[in-house]
Amino acid sequence: MGELIVAAVQIACGQHVTANLDKLEKHVREAARRGARLVVLQELFEGPYFCIDKDEGHNTLARPFKGNTTISRVASLARELGIVLPVSFFEEDGGRRFNSLTMIDADGRTLGLYRKSHIPDSPGYYEKYYFADGDTGFVVHDTAIGRIGAGICWDQWFPEAARSMVLRGAEILIYPTAIGSEPADPAWDTRDHWQRVMQGHAAANLTPLIAANRVGVEKGETGSLVFYGSSFIADHMGAKIAEAGRMDECVITAALDMDAIANQRRAWGVFRDRRCDLYRDLTAPTPARLMPTP
Amino acid sequence: MGELIVAAVQIACGQHVTANLDKLEKHVREAARRGARLVVLQELFEGPYFCIDKDEGHNTLARPFKGNTTISRVASLARELGIVLPVSFFEEDGGRRFNSLTMIDADGRTLGLYRKSHIPDSPGYYEKYYFADGDTGFVVHDTAIGRIGAGICWDQWFPEAARSMVLRGAEILIYPTAIGSEPADPAWDTRDHWQRVMQGHAAANLTPLIAANRVGVEKGETGSLVFYGSSFIADHMGAKIAEAGRMDECVITAALDMDAIANQRRAWGVFRDRRCDLYRDLTAPTPARLMPTP
Repeated sequence: MGELIVAAVQIACGQHVTANLDKLEKHVREAARRGARLVVLQELFEGPYFCIDKDEGHNTLARPFKGNTTISRVASLARELGIVLPVSFFEEDGGRRFNSLTMIDADGRTLGLYRKSHIPDSPGYYEKYYFADGDTGFVVHDTAIGRIGAGICWDQWFPEAARSMVLRGAEILIYPTAIGSEPADPAWDTRDHWQRVMQGHAAANLTPLIAANRVGVEKGETGSLVFYGSSFIADHMGAKIAEAGRMDECVITAALDMDAIANQRRAWGVFRDRRCDLYRDLTAPTPARLMPTP
Repeated sequence: MGELIVAAVQIACGQHVTANLDKLEKHVREAARRGARLVVLQELFEGPYFCIDKDEGHNTLARPFKGNTTISRVASLARELGIVLPVSFFEEDGGRRFNSLTMIDADGRTLGLYRKSHIPDSPGYYEKYYFADGDTGFVVHDTAIGRIGAGICWDQWFPEAARSMVLRGAEILIYPTAIGSEPADPAWDTRDHWQRVMQGHAAANLTPLIAANRVGVEKGETGSLVFYGSSFIADHMGAKIAEAGRMDECVITAALDMDAIANQRRAWGVFRDRRCDLYRDLTAPTPARLMPTP
């Protein structure tokens, strides 16, 4: 594969889908102009992060995977620019709703569907109210620029998900994201914690990682969130090689030597030395003592 | 539990066991003087890191777990100071040899035996020549200061091991270590990669982590290693809250609010939201494509 330029875009989302897509398109074109062949967009970029409240009315925002006009528009852009573009969207499927992602290949084809496996639930992030647990398992998308393992936001906190995607062939990990302040404790800043968990995935799996977060203040009915951006690209040793600010709408890019990284992933020896015979605790239910106290 | 002070010690090891133990004891006493109730010592601290070469003669260094004079000496020190001390040692058991660890509780009792699960094998780190794969599984030691999950060096590169120990109740993760330069490529510095993987474990598991490495230059028959120290203590969000230099023999300490950390580990929600039904890839053999090319 040789050198690959990858990008992440972060923007503030307003109420109007078309305006948000127009803004994203401008940044995607800028990323392509800089040579990026994979551009990661933030989670649920069509509009405000509605999970800030529990409001049944927001369920009408969900759309089927097939015939989805936002996906069609992004696919056209991907084909025109010859780039790979993941699309995070609120999916409706026969009365069930999921936090989903599809991957658009560089020829505009829609490659597959992933439904977010890990669904958070805390003040300002009431995702269990809207989304069923994903039922696809982890998905690796075989694209023109390599195999991409795509998680969605809260998935990024789980080493099991990152490892599973790499075991399934992922050469890059991506995480569209919507994370910011904690309404329950405005003084609490989770940004560095959030970055370090993912830097750890990159480092442990010798696999580069791209996280795209949103920026801006969004007011819900019961509170508000300040999204902290800080989208970043980590190399295969977990070092941040590109990072956006907390507030700016922008594109970040980085160049990856994919052949050298693939060689090092094998050569370092961690995959050879795994003890899969000892990992059975991971597939058992989590012990009660680690559960939140109600 | 409230506030707990923990420590790591790093030293350069010479040829003489007693001199090494004397030096360690001096630092352990200093750690206890500063209030530490858990002091993590480096891997195989009785002498030089003999795995730098493949030499059958080094196998005579292995000692049984029972009646081990080094363990007895450390146990006496632990009892005198009322602190918890892990002991990493080269174990002989009926003709089999392991890279092992036992935990000495604050009353001097020997709590249990862990045998290193992940055994590295690369130039300068020929551990597969000396050590059988550990057969104990991961071990969490229930000590006077809390439940301690103890891995040994290369174990620290595996998210599966850290997660397993926390699922088994670990409230602190510790990793006695011997890591430094790469004889195959003297320009290659793995230190930051090494730290980031473990910071990721701490952050993903909301569990503080202590790594103790050795320092100094050690010459083998076929090459030499420069151990890079950089022992560190990470908090439950993966932030380094204490760190030693690359060359100095020293003690580092940090204070941990164990009750607050335990609350946050549960409250953050990652343990509640795990999808153990989706993690079966982790317990299957690693695919051939991730293996080193011979």
